[in-house]
Amino acid sequence: MEFLQYRQTEDIGYITIDNMQEFNTLTMALLEEMDGLLKQIAKEREVKVVVIEGSDKVFCAGHSLREIESMTENEVLKLFQTCQQVMRTMSEMPQLIIAKVKKAAVAAGCQLVAASDMAIASEDAKFATPGINSGLFCSTPAVFLSRNIGRKKAVEMLFTGNFITAGEALQHGLVNKVVPAELLDEETEKLAKEVTKQSLNIIELGKRQFYQQINMEDFQALNYATEVIALNSKHPDAQEGIRAFFEKRRPVWTDTKTLI
Amino acid sequence: MEFLQYRQTEDIGYITIDNMQEFNTLTMALLEEMDGLLKQIAKEREVKVVVIEGSDKVFCAGHSLREIESMTENEVLKLFQTCQQVMRTMSEMPQLIIAKVKKAAVAAGCQLVAASDMAIASEDAKFATPGINSGLFCSTPAVFLSRNIGRKKAVEMLFTGNFITAGEALQHGLVNKVVPAELLDEETEKLAKEVTKQSLNIIELGKRQFYQQINMEDFQALNYATEVIALNSKHPDAQEGIRAFFEKRRPVWTDTKTLI
Amino acid sequence: MEFLQYRQTEDIGYITIDNMQEFNTLTMALLEEMDGLLKQIAKEREVKVVVIEGSDKVFCAGHSLREIESMTENEVLKLFQTCQQVMRTMSEMPQLIIAKVKKAAVAAGCQLVAASDMAIASEDAKFATPGINSGLFCSTPAVFLSRNIGRKKAVEMLFTGNFITAGEALQHGLVNKVVPAELLDEETEKLAKEVTKQSLNIIELGKRQFYQQINMEDFQALNYATEVIALNSKHPDAQEGIRAFFEKRRPVWTDTKTLI
Repeated sequence: MEFLQYRQTEDIGYITIDNMQEFNTLTMALLEEMDGLLKQIAKEREVKVVVIEGSDKVFCAGHSLREIESMTENEVLKLFQTCQQVMRTMSEMPQLIIAKVKKAAVAAGCQLVAASDMAIASEDAKFATPGINSGLFCSTPAVFLSRNIGRKKAVEMLFTGNFITAGEALQHGLVNKVVPAELLDEETEKLAKEVTKQSLNIIELGKRQFYQQINMEDFQALNYATEVIALNSKHPDAQEGIRAFFEKRRPVWTDTKTLI
Repeated sequence: MEFLQYRQTEDIGYITIDNMQEFNTLTMALLEEMDGLLKQIAKEREVKVVVIEGSDKVFCAGHSLREIESMTENEVLKLFQTCQQVMRTMSEMPQLIIAKVKKAAVAAGCQLVAASDMAIASEDAKFATPGINSGLFCSTPAVFLSRNIGRKKAVEMLFTGNFITAGEALQHGLVNKVVPAELLDEETEKLAKEVTKQSLNIIELGKRQFYQQINMEDFQALNYATEVIALNSKHPDAQEGIRAFFEKRRPVWTDTKTLI
Repeated sequence: MEFLQYRQTEDIGYITIDNMQEFNTLTMALLEEMDGLLKQIAKEREVKVVVIEGSDKVFCAGHSLREIESMTENEVLKLFQTCQQVMRTMSEMPQLIIAKVKKAAVAAGCQLVAASDMAIASEDAKFATPGINSGLFCSTPAVFLSRNIGRKKAVEMLFTGNFITAGEALQHGLVNKVVPAELLDEETEKLAKEVTKQSLNIIELGKRQFYQQINMEDFQALNYATEVIALNSKHPDAQEGIRAFFEKRRPVWTDTKTLI
């Protein structure tokens, strides 16, 4: 890979955005690489959680204005469709995705945080959607941003372009946790491990159910959830999990590697 | 009743989940009893607010894993459909429902809090949706949980299974108020009485309108609300309420008992 | 104008609700005046931000109960349809709207704050939807209130009728900022100026996109946003904005007045 690094430790996968020559921007080439990598991780099912992290200087500066400037409108459409495809792959893959934000997450970089399932930030992190400053409204970042934080704050970010601090991001629901920069690695791993103790099959089932139901009317959602949980109850991992609960031991999932 | 207690004081009804042999779990039998009781309260119109409370040791531990384990998939479906029916009855009854949470509210117990119209918690209360720990993702609790708190925090609760404190529940919008345990009774009654001063007819109208409109597109919702409020304006309780406002006295509702 | 004052300073428009004989209530006559004024501002495109403010004593006390009492049901319907029309004009006009709240914002006054794009409050401001106290449930205020703050808090406000403080309004997302009363003018202007540095064309595009996408399913929204941003990228103001970014200078928008 050219713009991303990937490493695995036990059942956590770490994707590092490593495109510092371009301030970690989401160029077309990087997005295609990202989509391919995520699809491979999804298919291999080697890990249960994927952490997306930036460099020490910037999490991600969004799309490359240089690239956009040089493109025709159709090429720009293709660029953003590729970005949309990455978001869709993130949403459809079985693994839970944690954004690990050390420094600035800007525009589509902020979108990446908002579209992740969870996010953890260092105290030095900051977040902005400043496209409007350059006449290019952050329409695509607005989508998941406004599904994470309230309308008033989202409007403020989108129309002033101003940064919010990690503390504000926490208060408004854009991130799950803020920690001192020197603890970011450790705390991210800790959060990821809270998830990797679960069955990947059930993480997959739960993730799909969560994002499906959240877009439905209340009782349509509850009716759907009722059918999902009834099916889930007879999954081998549920049967094992419930037995383990009564036997006061850790469950052995069908995807627990050491037993395969 | 076998698993619930019910008492009335003036126009507040108190339902106590009293199934401590089963850690206050929502067994099939308890859910059927609950649905019948709620429907009776709805029909009798004796009270304006219903408080749902647990025992001194646990608010509600969710569904019974013992029961689920012993059931066929079809029986599990029926169990969760009965639970869904309880939620629907809660939503359609004229009375406002306040969850009063002294200790742990877990899985479907947490769902019961999320599906209530308001909630008050003691400082000792805590909330979790840990089904995934046993391979049974909290799909049904996820529905109202994710309509009370933000996506990131909901994902954290659903995929780690960890408890959140009463303070976190307040901060994220799962409960309206947190009070010291010794003041929980008193503060719940105080909150309930803020509602019982209203007309039950208008509580009923407002509750139906609130949950209908919240699932609509913005201006579809506003258009619906416009028709509701025009109708409401000529309701005898509105005519009396407006007169009372100008005469600086308490209104006498059509359902004010002492005058019937 | 009879019930409103309007003044412009550079590219900010200030609408003052000035109907203190009626406690700044939104009478039919005032609403018609407001709708006409907003439409004129929209058409003239002289300003980029509109600030709506009340008097020193009250922001807005909602609809006039005197007026409602004197009307037939059909007339009440017409009154609320006119109010709905004002909300629609607010939503469809190109300018961003900031509610500037010095004192109480009640019922439809609270709705006006909730329906604005941003809001700033003095420490003396307070917010309530107390219609139910007079038997007239705040159905129409409920719509945008429940799209700004969480369900539990919205239910509390709507069914108890109690005021929340400016601090609570901030915490729950109803306002963007709370400042000491003596700084309200200054801080409002400062917030407005963060927006007026942008192109009005792009504010218009962004505002339309934001409220359209927020009512869509996640990926339907992202797909729509993708098309919007591709189009936006070749707008003259985006081309200029991106050039200005690389040249480290302030962009000159097509609607920058001093150059036309």
